[in-house]
Amino acid sequence: MFTEFAELDVKPGLEQEFIAGVEKSKPAFLRSAGCHGLHLVRSVENPSKFVLHVQWESVAHHMELFRNAPEFQEWRANVGHCFAAPPNVWHGQTVV
Amino acid sequence: MFTEFAELDVKPGLEQEFIAGVEKSKPAFLRSAGCHGLHLVRSVENPSKFVLHVQWESVAHHMELFRNAPEFQEWRANVGHCFAAPPNVWHGQTVV
Repeated sequence: MFTEFAELDVKPGLEQEFIAGVEKSKPAFLRSAGCHGLHLVRSVENPSKFVLHVQWESVAHHMELFRNAPEFQEWRANVGHCFAAPPNVWHGQTVV
Repeated sequence: MFTEFAELDVKPGLEQEFIAGVEKSKPAFLRSAGCHGLHLVRSVENPSKFVLHVQWESVAHHMELFRNAPEFQEWRANVGHCFAAPPNVWHGQTVV
């Protein structure tokens, strides 16, 4: 299992709208091939900074299948206007 | 519950030593007041990049109690020599 980490800086003032957009997008992720769950973390020190954690069976399920699916368009339509900068996205595996 | 995210760049070649140092340090975290678990994530795109996730009852349990406890010295003794740069540490809460 791989975790996608999407580091998201949100425009100040749009934080609640962004959180609502993630809630609204959750079903689109969960019905996508190879997606096994997601959660959103908000920074204590910088409340406009969030990290979306999404569990995928493989990096390709995220980067090839999801990115080319209508669910990705739905996600971006729900939250894209909230981003203060392009998301920084990487993938990780639990080793301990 | 709060999660500490410690973003750690490890010196190339010391990755396995670092992972072993985290394994060795796990009991020191788990016996610390307010610590409810930890795991280590390794980046797929940059295998020298890791993020340590530690669950704490409060930010103070990490930043005040743990940082001033002998367990923090033990952690740093086990892994400090592996760091290529000072760790970037922040705290987050799950909001979705």
